Amino acid sequence: MARIAALRAATDRGGRLDSAAPPPASAVAGRRPVTFEVVGPPPADGTTRARHGRLHTPHGVVETPAFMPVGTNATVKALDPDDLREVGAQIILANTYHLYLRPGAERIERLGGLHAFMAWQGPILTDSGGFQVVSLGDLREIDDDGVTFRSHLDGSTQRFTPERSIAVQEALGPDIAVAFDQPVPPHSATRAEVIAATERTHRWAERSLAAHGRADQGLFGIIQGGLEADLRATSARFIAALPFDGLCIGGLAGDETPAERVTVLDRLVELLEADPRPRYLMGLGSPLDMLEAVDRGIDLFDSVLPARVARNGTLWVPEGRLNLRNARYLDDPAPVQADCRCRLCRTFSRAYLAHLFRADELLAYRLATCHNLTFTLDFMARVRHAIDAGTFPETRREILSRAARDHPSQRRSSDTQAGAKGG
Amino acid sequence: MARIAALRAATDRGGRLDSAAPPPASAVAGRRPVTFEVVGPPPADGTTRARHGRLHTPHGVVETPAFMPVGTNATVKALDPDDLREVGAQIILANTYHLYLRPGAERIERLGGLHAFMAWQGPILTDSGGFQVVSLGDLREIDDDGVTFRSHLDGSTQRFTPERSIAVQEALGPDIAVAFDQPVPPHSATRAEVIAATERTHRWAERSLAAHGRADQGLFGIIQGGLEADLRATSARFIAALPFDGLCIGGLAGDETPAERVTVLDRLVELLEADPRPRYLMGLGSPLDMLEAVDRGIDLFDSVLPARVARNGTLWVPEGRLNLRNARYLDDPAPVQADCRCRLCRTFSRAYLAHLFRADELLAYRLATCHNLTFTLDFMARVRHAIDAGTFPETRREILSRAARDHPSQRRSSDTQAGAKGG
Repeated sequence: MARIAALRAATDRGGRLDSAAPPPASAVAGRRPVTFEVVGPPPADGTTRARHGRLHTPHGVVETPAFMPVGTNATVKALDPDDLREVGAQIILANTYHLYLRPGAERIERLGGLHAFMAWQGPILTDSGGFQVVSLGDLREIDDDGVTFRSHLDGSTQRFTPERSIAVQEALGPDIAVAFDQPVPPHSATRAEVIAATERTHRWAERSLAAHGRADQGLFGIIQGGLEADLRATSARFIAALPFDGLCIGGLAGDETPAERVTVLDRLVELLEADPRPRYLMGLGSPLDMLEAVDRGIDLFDSVLPARVARNGTLWVPEGRLNLRNARYLDDPAPVQADCRCRLCRTFSRAYLAHLFRADELLAYRLATCHNLTFTLDFMARVRHAIDAGTFPETRREILSRAARDHPSQRRSSDTQAGAKGG
Repeated sequence: MARIAALRAATDRGGRLDSAAPPPASAVAGRRPVTFEVVGPPPADGTTRARHGRLHTPHGVVETPAFMPVGTNATVKALDPDDLREVGAQIILANTYHLYLRPGAERIERLGGLHAFMAWQGPILTDSGGFQVVSLGDLREIDDDGVTFRSHLDGSTQRFTPERSIAVQEALGPDIAVAFDQPVPPHSATRAEVIAATERTHRWAERSLAAHGRADQGLFGIIQGGLEADLRATSARFIAALPFDGLCIGGLAGDETPAERVTVLDRLVELLEADPRPRYLMGLGSPLDMLEAVDRGIDLFDSVLPARVARNGTLWVPEGRLNLRNARYLDDPAPVQADCRCRLCRTFSRAYLAHLFRADELLAYRLATCHNLTFTLDFMARVRHAIDAGTFPETRREILSRAARDHPSQRRSSDTQAGAKGG
C-alpha cells in the first residue's frame, strides 16, 4: 500500500524521539485521500498565527478553522442529518470506543459504513478510542501493547491495541482515522508518567501507521507530552516526522488552565510552523477558548460542550449565556437570540423553550442543540471571514473585550471531552 | 354575543333530557367560526355510514375523517411544526388540563395564544380537561358545580368548573374548545353512576355554552352515557339539541370491547343521522379501530397511541408492527416500511433505528414518531380517497381481511387517552 511505503520512507528518514526531519507528508499529498491547503496564511507581521485552510476529504471540503460537532453514537444527540446541514456542520466526529461496543464496527461495516449508517454524506473523523479507554479509570489496564478495559455498558472485557483501533476505524469507514494513543491528564500525572505515556503514544503511532491500509481514508497522529515544554516539543517532532495526514494535539482541553494551554500551543505551533498539515486540538469547544487557539495557529476542534450545555438548558448568545431553566424566561416573548438564523430563534420564544425544558419535552433538546451548534459554527465562520479580511487580530480583541465587559465570570467555559459515558 | 343568543334560542327550543328537537346549529352555521360540510355523503344503499367532510376553522380546513395528533404540553412529543406538516397533520389537539397547570393559560394568552406559542399555524382543538381531572382518581373530588383536584405536578389544590374550563380554553385560544364533562369508565361504574355523571355532563354542557363568548372559536359538546343504549340515546339527544359546533363522543376508547364500542356508535349515529355537525370519537387512535368507527359515521379522532408506542420502539407497518428493540433488526438494512414517505423510512435503516433505541438516543423518538404519525395520517387519507371513490366498503374489507391474515393477535391495539400524566 502507498501508505505503508510512505511510512517506511518516513520512518527510515527519522521518526525517532530526537528527530527534527522535515515532515514527509507534503511529498505524498497528491496521492492522499485527505489533503490540506492553507488558502489564507498568517500575516508576515506575526500579529497572529491564525490561518484559513481547506481540508479535502473523500466526502467534501472543510473550511478551517473548523469546529466538529460530536456524534458519539453515530448521531449528534437530538439532531438528524438535515439539522446538521442546517446548523452548518462541515464535518462531524464519531467515537470509535462507543461504536465498537455498540452497535459494533463490523456491523456498521456490513451496513455500508458510518456514512450510510447514519445517513451523513459529509466528512467524518473518528477518534481512536484512546481517550475513552484510558479515561475508564479502574476499568482499564494499560500495558505496552495496548489497553484492556471493561465495557461501561455490560462490563465485558475488551482490548484495544493500535492495530485493533485502526481495524475498527477502517471498518467504520470515516474519512479520517486517528492513531491510537495514551493521553494523560496533565495535572494528575507525574513527569515520569507523562514520559512513559508519551513514548508509548509514539510507538503506538508507528504501529497505527503500519496497520493502516485503507486507501480512501486519511490518518492523523496525536502529539502528547503533557504541559512540559520539552516533552511536548519531543512529541511534536516525533509525530510530525511520521507520514500522518494531520497532527492532533491531545492531552489538553482537560484540567489545564487557559494560560497553560496557550503556552503549550505557542511552543508547539512554533515547531510546526513549516509543517503543511492541519493542526487539530482535540476536545476544545467553547468559542472563546477556540478563538485563542485559532490565534495560535490551530485549524480543527471538536467538543461535546455546545450540545451538552444546550441539553442542560444553557443557551449561548453574544452577550454570554441564558439559563432557560430560570423562571424569568417563562414570560419572555423574545427569541433566544434576535439575529440568529437557527430553527429555534427564527420560530420560537424564550418562553416556549423555557416551558419545554420545564415539561421535559424532547423538542427542547433538539432546539437548544440546534441553537448552540449554530452559534458555535457561525462563530467559526466569523473567525474565517476575519482571517480572510486580514482583520483577525482586531476581531479577536473586540470579542475578548466584549466578553470581559459582558460576562467576566463566564470568561471560560469548562470544557469536557466525550468520556466513556458518551457525548 | 352571537353564541349566547344562539344558545338562548336553542335552549328555549329544547335542550332537555327528553328533547328531540332538531339541532339548531345549521341555522347559525354561516356566522360560526367553525363550520362543517359533508362533501362525500354515505351511499344511499346503506353499506356504510362513512362520509368525507370538510371542517372549516379559523386556521384552515380539515378534511375528514381526520386523526388529530396530540400535543399535550403544546408540543407533539419530539416533533416541531415542520415535522407536523411533513407527517401530514391537518389539526392537532392540546390538553387544557396540562397547559392550565404548566405553563398556565393566562401566560399563553399573554404570549399570543397557543398558535403563536407553539408556532403551529394550523387548526388546534383543546379538550376540556374533564377526562384528565376525572381520571386523577384519589386526587379529585366531583360535586355538582365542578371538580376539585390536586395537581399531579406539585400537589396544589385546583378547581375546574364548566366556566373555568371555558375561560381557560378561551385564554389558550384554540380554533375549537370543548365543553367540560364528567366521563365515566363504562365497566367500573354502576348504571346509577353513569346516569349521575351523564346528567351532570348535560348541565355542564349548558353552562359551558353560556360561559363561552369567544367569537373566533368553535365549541363542541360531549355526549356521555356509558355503554347502555338508552342513556347514550338520551345524552345524544340532549347534547345535539344544544348549539354546539360539533358533537364529541366521550367515555369510549377506554375499557370497552370493540364490539361494545361499535354497538354504541351504531345506535348513536343512527340518532344523529340528520345532524349536520361533525362527530368526534375522543381518544381512539389505532388505524383498525378508526376504520370501524369511520364505517359507523365518525369524522374525527385523537389519540396519543401512535406516538406513544413509537417512543417505545413499536413501528406500525402495513403487515402489523415491528418492535425495534428486537435484536433481529440490528442487522436489517431495510427501511422500516419500503413505500413510506416519512423522514425515517426515506433516510435510515431498521438497523440504525434499532441502534438508536438501544443507545437511548433522542433521535430515535423523533424518527419513530414521524413514522407512526405518517402511517396513521396516510391511512386516514386512504380512507378518504376510498370514500370519494365509492369503494370504502371494499377497502375496509380488504384491510380487515389482511389484518386478520397477517397479524391476528394484533387485531386490536390497546388504546389509551392522554391521562393526567400526559401524552
